[in-house]
Amino acid sequence: MTPDSVEIAKAAKEAFEISQLIPTEERVKALHSICVALQANKNEILSANADDLQAAQGEVHAGRMSESMMKRLDLSKGDKWDSMLQGVRDVAALPDPTSVVTYASELDDDLELYRVSCPIGVLLVIFESRPEVVVNIASLAIKSGNAAILKGGKESTRTAVLLSKAISEGLSQTSLPQTYIQTIQTRAEVSSLLGLDQYIDLVIPRGSNSLVRNIQNSTRIPVMGHADGLCSVYLDETADVEKAVRVVVDSKTDYPSACNAAEFLIVHESLLKSIWPVVAEALIKSRVHLQCDPSMLDTVRSLEGFDTFVQPANESSFLTEHLSLTMSVISTPSLQDAIRFINSHSSHHTDVIVTENELAASVFTRGVDSAGTFVNASSRFADGFRYGFGTEVGISTGRIHARGPVGLEGLVIYKYMLRSKANKGHTVGEFGAGKKSYKHKPIVAEAVPF
Amino acid sequence: MTPDSVEIAKAAKEAFEISQLIPTEERVKALHSICVALQANKNEILSANADDLQAAQGEVHAGRMSESMMKRLDLSKGDKWDSMLQGVRDVAALPDPTSVVTYASELDDDLELYRVSCPIGVLLVIFESRPEVVVNIASLAIKSGNAAILKGGKESTRTAVLLSKAISEGLSQTSLPQTYIQTIQTRAEVSSLLGLDQYIDLVIPRGSNSLVRNIQNSTRIPVMGHADGLCSVYLDETADVEKAVRVVVDSKTDYPSACNAAEFLIVHESLLKSIWPVVAEALIKSRVHLQCDPSMLDTVRSLEGFDTFVQPANESSFLTEHLSLTMSVISTPSLQDAIRFINSHSSHHTDVIVTENELAASVFTRGVDSAGTFVNASSRFADGFRYGFGTEVGISTGRIHARGPVGLEGLVIYKYMLRSKANKGHTVGEFGAGKKSYKHKPIVAEAVPF
Repeated sequence: MTPDSVEIAKAAKEAFEISQLIPTEERVKALHSICVALQANKNEILSANADDLQAAQGEVHAGRMSESMMKRLDLSKGDKWDSMLQGVRDVAALPDPTSVVTYASELDDDLELYRVSCPIGVLLVIFESRPEVVVNIASLAIKSGNAAILKGGKESTRTAVLLSKAISEGLSQTSLPQTYIQTIQTRAEVSSLLGLDQYIDLVIPRGSNSLVRNIQNSTRIPVMGHADGLCSVYLDETADVEKAVRVVVDSKTDYPSACNAAEFLIVHESLLKSIWPVVAEALIKSRVHLQCDPSMLDTVRSLEGFDTFVQPANESSFLTEHLSLTMSVISTPSLQDAIRFINSHSSHHTDVIVTENELAASVFTRGVDSAGTFVNASSRFADGFRYGFGTEVGISTGRIHARGPVGLEGLVIYKYMLRSKANKGHTVGEFGAGKKSYKHKPIVAEAVPF
Repeated sequence: MTPDSVEIAKAAKEAFEISQLIPTEERVKALHSICVALQANKNEILSANADDLQAAQGEVHAGRMSESMMKRLDLSKGDKWDSMLQGVRDVAALPDPTSVVTYASELDDDLELYRVSCPIGVLLVIFESRPEVVVNIASLAIKSGNAAILKGGKESTRTAVLLSKAISEGLSQTSLPQTYIQTIQTRAEVSSLLGLDQYIDLVIPRGSNSLVRNIQNSTRIPVMGHADGLCSVYLDETADVEKAVRVVVDSKTDYPSACNAAEFLIVHESLLKSIWPVVAEALIKSRVHLQCDPSMLDTVRSLEGFDTFVQPANESSFLTEHLSLTMSVISTPSLQDAIRFINSHSSHHTDVIVTENELAASVFTRGVDSAGTFVNASSRFADGFRYGFGTEVGISTGRIHARGPVGLEGLVIYKYMLRSKANKGHTVGEFGAGKKSYKHKPIVAEAVPF
């Protein structure tokens, strides 16, 4: 336990508690001030970013970093800078997720109960590589009223330090404490913080599977995120061939390294000579490598590209998140078996059925125990922006609190406020057999009236 | 890892998955069948309960069990049996917490998204002593569509085995699997199950602090519950004396061993010669022992019972959940200090302000970071029945998923169902710059239409 980490965590909790008494308008003001501070420091930040990039180039040459990782570091490319700032303004413009009354009841004359949304507390967010995530996450935390401690990848340290400085500058223009958003640099600090569940309320890892898994394995603090994105498309007996081709190809190829890209294709065995060869042909044309159930090879053997793109499945085919133009394919004798296969092999992220049968659609969407169950639509729709949340905190494959694409709503919880307006206050001793009983009369209220 | 535990956990997950395809009406039918089975086996169950009681009497004589624990075992006392059965019928009559649409949006023509509530999965519920909790929890799990594994206290094993048999009998009258609700007997099984996060989705411990803490410390599975109930009442500068007396006495004495009983009394220092002595007198009359901040002793020294009931606070006074007629008392120079004290010493369960000042009420309810923040009302109101939830799964001091008294809503999460009705299905490749954009048009729907 580094003493510094304890100080950081304490400061975050204190900043959170102080912030609870500051009007929510200040949080929106902070976001706009941060935009101003970022813009004012643009040159300095992009110059630090160039230094990070140069160092990364050295790492790439030495074979210690991938080209694609290096590219993600670059803040000056295209409209990345402007869209980072626009992102902050967009978050500022979203509806306030806090102070929303979600249940209100008159328990007795002059005794009113309100359940009202409020921030969770202190977030620890750990991510890799792309430096603009610092700004992105800081905006989400500020908008939802949570204090946050952020740790980015070491490749972008120079950039992140200056981005954080701009965030602090922005916060200093408001009554929010500057310790509301803090950044840390080392893994040792992360390890220490993961032990401080008295100060930190939620950990949000955004990055590779191994990052997420390591974190899940090393803390008692709740973790929101997903380790795997093992999504599947099932072609039902009644599948339409055009829908099958379009949905499978889009699910696999639109963005293969995304967590909502499909890794498994499950084909009803009645389709092996009809739709399966057409779908296989389209996938091969899209340069997708297929790892197939042996029973499925015969009917596609004559396709152009078979030798290059088709091979028998191996024992890891249905355990692997390929994250590339590779798809594992299996056949199934029934919808029930497909559901069972998905429930035991998918990561409960998003699974798709292609079918013309209403009952099959209904059985699949209810029987598949995943965050998203889709009918005749690409798995790639599983995304906060596409769902209409305006922004995305991440995607959760957990089963409590928030599931699937998580918007700002995933960063709030609620508290109960109870007020007696009676002359003598209220005691529970007034209720019971032979005494008063509870009214439980719904109150219509959008905000707490006190 | 006992192989039995793995089988139990697997069977529970399988039962859960099968149940997803069974109409929810079967769950209500199961509850009524369980009532019938319990009633049919009443004599046998009460006779086993008498055996448990007799064994417990031996333990009490030997000093290994408290009298009150023994009493909680008794199922034949008063209307306990009938109210246990009525409890099951009450749960059956509650609105179904599943299949509720909480967000629905048309993403594009013929592309509809529904967020719909659904069960969490497999619950592991661990409790102590009172055997009727088996029936109570089984009803809640069945009503909300979750499979459950239940472990009661070893003192009530004979009773619990027969209650479980009746539950199985009831389930066998429906299409739900009998493994939907399973019971286990040993701590070794619990330890094994706590490691099986691939099958078990939520742990709910109901019992002593040490039980809850031990479980929280030994599993990666999310835990819903509260380890401590350190609640406080703060008497603000403007407190009304009658409200102060009534609220403090009720909060402390209505049911001292409950988690929502107040343990701390915080008094604004301007009240030390006015309201504090009146409140202290009332507490002493109710036989409450006071552990006071030394500064507070002088003004109550002349009270009858001072020598017996009042003593200086010691270093553990503000760390202890007394669960008895003892209250720790401290004075504070300001509302801000009271809030700081509560945030750092309370268990974020329920805290109360007694005040006539609207602003103080507003600042306190927002600034105190607890599941319940009350104005002029007893902390004892923090309860699912009193809040109007019909029943209570437990009280949570966690900050994600569910907070405060948890009703059936706490046993559900949601999934996203997306359906394309378009002729060609839907791909994300159709959207973007120069192509279609998302509509995000709200849909009014109470249920998923497919």
